Amino acid sequence: MSFSPSSHGSIPTAAIVVIGDEILSGRTKDKNIGWLADQLGALGIKLVEARVIADKKNIIIDTVRTLSNAYDLVFTSGGIGPTHDDITTDAVAAAFNVPVIRHPEAERRLIAHYKNTDLEFNEARQKMADIPDTATLIDNPLSAAPGYIIGNVYVLPGVPTILQAMFQGVKGKLPGGVVLTRITVQCSTGEGNIATILADVEAKYHGVSIGSYPYMKPGHFGTAVVLSGLDDGLTTKAAKIVMREVRAFGADADIVNADGTVAK
Amino acid sequence: MSFSPSSHGSIPTAAIVVIGDEILSGRTKDKNIGWLADQLGALGIKLVEARVIADKKNIIIDTVRTLSNAYDLVFTSGGIGPTHDDITTDAVAAAFNVPVIRHPEAERRLIAHYKNTDLEFNEARQKMADIPDTATLIDNPLSAAPGYIIGNVYVLPGVPTILQAMFQGVKGKLPGGVVLTRITVQCSTGEGNIATILADVEAKYHGVSIGSYPYMKPGHFGTAVVLSGLDDGLTTKAAKIVMREVRAFGADADIVNADGTVAK
Repeated sequence: MSFSPSSHGSIPTAAIVVIGDEILSGRTKDKNIGWLADQLGALGIKLVEARVIADKKNIIIDTVRTLSNAYDLVFTSGGIGPTHDDITTDAVAAAFNVPVIRHPEAERRLIAHYKNTDLEFNEARQKMADIPDTATLIDNPLSAAPGYIIGNVYVLPGVPTILQAMFQGVKGKLPGGVVLTRITVQCSTGEGNIATILADVEAKYHGVSIGSYPYMKPGHFGTAVVLSGLDDGLTTKAAKIVMREVRAFGADADIVNADGTVAK
Repeated sequence: MSFSPSSHGSIPTAAIVVIGDEILSGRTKDKNIGWLADQLGALGIKLVEARVIADKKNIIIDTVRTLSNAYDLVFTSGGIGPTHDDITTDAVAAAFNVPVIRHPEAERRLIAHYKNTDLEFNEARQKMADIPDTATLIDNPLSAAPGYIIGNVYVLPGVPTILQAMFQGVKGKLPGGVVLTRITVQCSTGEGNIATILADVEAKYHGVSIGSYPYMKPGHFGTAVVLSGLDDGLTTKAAKIVMREVRAFGADADIVNADGTVAK
């Protein structure tokens, strides 16, 4: 049971597209979905889906178009480096029906960057100054080659450290999300024992979403129940009902802080 | 540049669907895409895309239908536990237009399993014996609650250890993939320096796919060039050409084993 974008117009929606054969082959393990999910959640932006797709131009075009139409924001990761399999920019430009241009400011930054290295600013690297026409640059404080924004699509690199550094520069400018209240009730019992309690509370407290996540620790197992909602008062009230009902069932139950300590 | 499913009919294609709000909220980091990607790659099955979607019935139905029609195999992860947000089975049944039934053998296994625990086999847990009609069970050696196969869709749980144990039981029965030859050439230079070499070799050796992955180690950086193809001889030949050309450019280049040691 989750929020539907349409029924809560004030929460911006987002999708992530990870572009890269190396993720699909298993060679590289994706870290960008989880990291961006955390960031978007903290900004009150609802991540509705994430896709991992191949380095194929027609697939990238179709996916970017579909998700750009369906959601408020789209973040892509990967495929903007200097090599022949870096085709994200060509595909994103095609998705928006604009040409790719050599961007003077991007080129200036790259020339300045490579002057400070012993690497040649050759034809392959010059490709990183090519940007879809009408896009605006996203600064890259680590390795100069910029990302960019076109329409509602944010094009970022695949290397996690660079993606993270670049995201810091844009996150202040994202459409302000409404921050959800999120409360965790830690329960010393299996989720199968409290499933009915959770379903009942969710049915009664409209707008409060409840997820349950089993965990095991040496000596015992339990369930983390996470309640989230736009209405802080309502979400807090629902969390207290869950706590009371689970205790009435005979298990321990406490509202806990992010570090797992019991909230006062 | 990757294989297109249609042009190489002998390679089975696959998609992964990770179902879970907890992944999209960032609370849980997905490990199943990377693990399954490795397994499928080793079996010679081509993973063409992966999606992370919400616990919403209509989204699950649409996604399962779309991917089941597009690819030879679909693997889902998550949403088959005992709680109210575990709606994968209802959605998968709807995607195949069959009812959900209480499966006698699944129920028998669960009853036997819970007899050995101090947990009650209550209504919520009984839900784990509900399976789409016509589906066949996938054994769960860890916690009894089975997965299942319906059509070309393999429904697995979200908990990585259980998913992994269950996958071991089905992988021998998957449509035999053709195992790709995969060769890594480690090069002591940035990918921007060898981009032209790679593009030229890929253009010349039709059927050999080349990816390049920059890496940094203390003291130096370099590029791992991965060549893969159906034709072992052709792929090996292309790898040797890459090695020779990169050496001619003035950098070190070696074909390496999976552990990074130089191959003999």
